[in-house]
Amino acid sequence: MGVLLTHNAYGKSRVRLTKVERTAERHDLFEWSVDVQLEGDFEPAYTEGNNLNVIATDTMRNTVYAHAADGPLGSPEAFGLLLTKHFMTYPQVTQASYWGRIVVGDAAHAHAFAGNGSEQRTCAVRANEQGNTVISGLDNLMVMKTSGSAWKDFHRDAYRTLPDAEDRILATSLTATWSYSSPVDWNVAHVEVRTAMLKAFAGHRSLGAQHTLYAMGEAALAAVPALAEITIAMPNRHRIPMNLEPLGRANTNSVFVATDEPHGLIKGTLRRDM
Amino acid sequence: MGVLLTHNAYGKSRVRLTKVERTAERHDLFEWSVDVQLEGDFEPAYTEGNNLNVIATDTMRNTVYAHAADGPLGSPEAFGLLLTKHFMTYPQVTQASYWGRIVVGDAAHAHAFAGNGSEQRTCAVRANEQGNTVISGLDNLMVMKTSGSAWKDFHRDAYRTLPDAEDRILATSLTATWSYSSPVDWNVAHVEVRTAMLKAFAGHRSLGAQHTLYAMGEAALAAVPALAEITIAMPNRHRIPMNLEPLGRANTNSVFVATDEPHGLIKGTLRRDM
Amino acid sequence: MGVLLTHNAYGKSRVRLTKVERTAERHDLFEWSVDVQLEGDFEPAYTEGNNLNVIATDTMRNTVYAHAADGPLGSPEAFGLLLTKHFMTYPQVTQASYWGRIVVGDAAHAHAFAGNGSEQRTCAVRANEQGNTVISGLDNLMVMKTSGSAWKDFHRDAYRTLPDAEDRILATSLTATWSYSSPVDWNVAHVEVRTAMLKAFAGHRSLGAQHTLYAMGEAALAAVPALAEITIAMPNRHRIPMNLEPLGRANTNSVFVATDEPHGLIKGTLRRDM
Amino acid sequence: MGVLLTHNAYGKSRVRLTKVERTAERHDLFEWSVDVQLEGDFEPAYTEGNNLNVIATDTMRNTVYAHAADGPLGSPEAFGLLLTKHFMTYPQVTQASYWGRIVVGDAAHAHAFAGNGSEQRTCAVRANEQGNTVISGLDNLMVMKTSGSAWKDFHRDAYRTLPDAEDRILATSLTATWSYSSPVDWNVAHVEVRTAMLKAFAGHRSLGAQHTLYAMGEAALAAVPALAEITIAMPNRHRIPMNLEPLGRANTNSVFVATDEPHGLIKGTLRRDM
Repeated sequence: MGVLLTHNAYGKSRVRLTKVERTAERHDLFEWSVDVQLEGDFEPAYTEGNNLNVIATDTMRNTVYAHAADGPLGSPEAFGLLLTKHFMTYPQVTQASYWGRIVVGDAAHAHAFAGNGSEQRTCAVRANEQGNTVISGLDNLMVMKTSGSAWKDFHRDAYRTLPDAEDRILATSLTATWSYSSPVDWNVAHVEVRTAMLKAFAGHRSLGAQHTLYAMGEAALAAVPALAEITIAMPNRHRIPMNLEPLGRANTNSVFVATDEPHGLIKGTLRRDM
Repeated sequence: MGVLLTHNAYGKSRVRLTKVERTAERHDLFEWSVDVQLEGDFEPAYTEGNNLNVIATDTMRNTVYAHAADGPLGSPEAFGLLLTKHFMTYPQVTQASYWGRIVVGDAAHAHAFAGNGSEQRTCAVRANEQGNTVISGLDNLMVMKTSGSAWKDFHRDAYRTLPDAEDRILATSLTATWSYSSPVDWNVAHVEVRTAMLKAFAGHRSLGAQHTLYAMGEAALAAVPALAEITIAMPNRHRIPMNLEPLGRANTNSVFVATDEPHGLIKGTLRRDM
Repeated sequence: MGVLLTHNAYGKSRVRLTKVERTAERHDLFEWSVDVQLEGDFEPAYTEGNNLNVIATDTMRNTVYAHAADGPLGSPEAFGLLLTKHFMTYPQVTQASYWGRIVVGDAAHAHAFAGNGSEQRTCAVRANEQGNTVISGLDNLMVMKTSGSAWKDFHRDAYRTLPDAEDRILATSLTATWSYSSPVDWNVAHVEVRTAMLKAFAGHRSLGAQHTLYAMGEAALAAVPALAEITIAMPNRHRIPMNLEPLGRANTNSVFVATDEPHGLIKGTLRRDM
Repeated sequence: MGVLLTHNAYGKSRVRLTKVERTAERHDLFEWSVDVQLEGDFEPAYTEGNNLNVIATDTMRNTVYAHAADGPLGSPEAFGLLLTKHFMTYPQVTQASYWGRIVVGDAAHAHAFAGNGSEQRTCAVRANEQGNTVISGLDNLMVMKTSGSAWKDFHRDAYRTLPDAEDRILATSLTATWSYSSPVDWNVAHVEVRTAMLKAFAGHRSLGAQHTLYAMGEAALAAVPALAEITIAMPNRHRIPMNLEPLGRANTNSVFVATDEPHGLIKGTLRRDM
């Protein structure tokens, strides 16, 4: 039996690009997810395992980050035109396709950002013979800051490989719950707690996620007198600086690989000291 | 061997409540997901299958909708206090717990609402020897309207059971892609297309999802002269009026069951007639 | 400006069909998710809001369940051919498309079924100055039974609308965790606990989910002497009998609507009585 | 106002460990997701940003991979006891917690593995005036092989950083669709196509994902004479060798980091040559 390969294509999907473009006044933050796909003279890889023409999908990934480093991103459309033009320079490529998707992009502050909107307000009430307990909260409030965040001078031992960082991206998807010492206007209190936490996040000079968590909890307790206790959990959604040296470029703290896993998870509970 | 039941609890989870509270000036839309859990004298159900004390989880669900019909929701905390107080009136209940979660809640218009924020901007670029193709778009833009939407006079046959509706909730999670006849400022054009579609959705007097889709596509083509073609897909995220009659209440078109599946799926492609 | 509607299609997605086909020796259980899409003479619905030709997507849903009731399902391909043939009998339809997806389908017992495989084995270990604690478990073990399960004689009040059921489908996605009184061969013990619970689920004559939970916990404790305590959580994934009367058919306890939300949630902890 | 930090904890979540333990007769494949959490003397990090005691979550991750390299994994319970014992050796740690989750673990072949069970059988049928089209398929069939897979001699340019690999893990989550030249017993044909693809995947000496895709398609066409055409899409779920050198260990091609994104995506369509 003969077999024909009637169509083939390959590429790299879900290349998660984070870029910070800095000016004196403000930082622009781009979080995109990019897919690339090529068609062309690749049949021998399928039929014979001959890969000489095959541009590895890892090479495609490198190309995305390298071009992101070379100039302003502009728009997903402009960046897509740039990338597909690059891939068409390979003689074995007859068609290059690009898909871009903006994950985060709205600025809420000169260098702090509130994210992609799957935040939900939560609430738990329990009643028994001792009375009622009300716990209010929020889930999944994505926040990032591109300035004023360090992570250094932490424990050093044989398992540590991470270097100190003076200026890193801090990104987290916040979960918080809090209780009250007395009934309040629940809707108003929710807005006040949320606002206090966001303001503390943006304005705080962070020496670590733990440090920022504490500042946010402290701000919430200060903002709403009826707040008795607050618990915050902050997954540390790492944005890892891309190593551009093997690609002949310097990374001026601007091009990052966004990752979901593994992630740090920092928790803390604060209450008013009587 | 003897066995002890050391702890037990049961309840209903993910009760999806949609409520519209209407005043002359505006509609307030609430979309909540509610969980209820009871503890108390329920051991015989576990050990002997004796259910006489067991309030069915379906009954709990009915209770959520009935109480939602009885007055303004206020806040998840207030509604949780109301519900747990109700469940504590059963002698067999020693503890009642409630969790509420706000899924949609921000008003964008007197009776139209833009939703929970997982919207993403998308883009596809393809290059080959014929040149470049740019497709822009957006995914998962949740919109709802609580007025100006009917669904009636559709095909009648032996398989139809759905009655005509003069005034229903129209809820959808919009996906759209569009192409251009000439290059534009991609970022500006994106905002213009999105705004035109949202405005048409809110202002349009809908006779069906198909009718609204067409109005949105027409508005996008009118707003951006460089737009060549637009394709819209609208899953019809049904909000089904809750039948409150068996619970001794009238439903004044205000209490709905939100569902994700099954859902209608309406698609259409529009282009400029030359 | 003129506008052309160059393509349109609409349909119903994620119609979740559960069917039991019973013979003397065994039950066959089918859990499918079905999408239907139609093309044809539907432009007036888009351009004018004229719905006279439009077969409601709710009608499509009814049609899926009605045809499922009319004969053996056979295979998704055979059922798809039957359904599309039906929709082609409407003069306004020029193309009918069907997508089927088998969610559950493998038999593990004459009338009990173990499900779709996203089960994971879990484990938690905690060490502190008091020593070590080991908790083993499993998540998301989907099981169903189509015989030997009743739900009746539960609490009756003004909020109850659910009738008694002598013979219903019991479907759950099991989570369990257990602790040990002494170290064991962890891998062997895991298999023994899982097997004991599955056997109890299948063989037990259930008077309610609570009743079954207890039987499973009791069986696990009996099977593994080193087991100290077991906690089981069972979401009750309701399979609701489809009302076929308005469609002129009897439902012989064979056609069901599968739902994920809302769901009951039953929990219990059992330990050995010393 | 004074504030008290009443509880704190931190750790690393979703550390995705892949390990191959090889003997002459067979390979054992472990795919686990691990979380670690520590409690202890960490308050200064929260209150002052003093991180001297803080073991970075990145260090915790390194520790997981290092211990995985040091000996057989055994069971998640045994590995959890080992890890928590290690973390308790730090004087600032008062409690160490571990959660493990087995994602893949069942052997289907001496060095090929079929995965975690979210596979679904699919089917599409289209009817119009030209007749019927039936497309059968499967989604999300996870397969891995730990032997007989190379990736080398691919295109070399300024953007390539990936080295050649003689012996790598090949992991994919297969999607396939196929059409028939004539009606068949759909259920039987489905099993035959699936079996032929799995057997080709396991037995084939792979020179790349493209090469394996072709072998699988060829095997399916050979196994079922009524098959007209088959399209396969294979996301390349990379298992990246962990660099253990900074941790003072050699990686004997046994410890890998499992990743979901980015991933390669390889597609191909094969049909019978007439």
